[in-house]
Amino acid sequence: MFLQPPDPELADRIAAVVERWGGAFEVVPTDDWKSTVRSFDGPVVHLTMYGLPLARVVPRLARAERVLLVVGGAKVPADLYRRSTLNVAVGHQPHSEVAAVAVVLERLLGLPGPRRLRGARQVIVPQARGKRVLTGRGRT
Amino acid sequence: MFLQPPDPELADRIAAVVERWGGAFEVVPTDDWKSTVRSFDGPVVHLTMYGLPLARVVPRLARAERVLLVVGGAKVPADLYRRSTLNVAVGHQPHSEVAAVAVVLERLLGLPGPRRLRGARQVIVPQARGKRVLTGRGRT
Repeated sequence: MFLQPPDPELADRIAAVVERWGGAFEVVPTDDWKSTVRSFDGPVVHLTMYGLPLARVVPRLARAERVLLVVGGAKVPADLYRRSTLNVAVGHQPHSEVAAVAVVLERLLGLPGPRRLRGARQVIVPQARGKRVLTGRGRT
Repeated sequence: MFLQPPDPELADRIAAVVERWGGAFEVVPTDDWKSTVRSFDGPVVHLTMYGLPLARVVPRLARAERVLLVVGGAKVPADLYRRSTLNVAVGHQPHSEVAAVAVVLERLLGLPGPRRLRGARQVIVPQARGKRVLTGRGRT
């Protein structure tokens, strides 16, 4: 995840989650989102309620090798609407940006199964009730 | 949405969004989540990364007439794990609770199309670039 403005405390918190739960998630600070967007090799998809319905663009996105999803805060620079390959709406009324990213990921990649992510120190064993966690770097 | 503890400011903000964009979304304050859960007529689904994979329970949830989704904050009372009909995981590593609710809604109800919600004062016309909004209570 590219993050502007940089937030070292958030980056550290994410790194601590990755250390425990594994995976390749990383926060890359940037001071220049325009350059990040310009140099990206693939469709740049700005998630905004003003965009095209997600269902209509999923096939196109699914064919791309890499996709850059862009979400803005309360004040989105008008430039972002122009510099994106596509403006895409997960919903057409106000909604959470975090939720928008999650729904797009689910549509493109499916639901994450209960697998151990690479480098995990612990892994969950799904339960209808209660919690079960296996620790250690072994395979499940 | 039942909300404990009550947050009148949040309820007001949601009401203002509904006034503009339409829909039936409402925040109902509660001081007693156990009674809300106990009196609900349908499956109570606690969303937690420790639960059963969502994909496995979607068919069961889709058959229910009403479903109560429950998400907790940082400290989830242990009681909630026992009082739920099912503990269900959208992902099996730490993730946003808001994202979890969004993914479940999308799986159960599909993506929201660009339709006018009941009572809307304005409605979005989806665009690949820029913003287009129609105002007025007429039909689109």
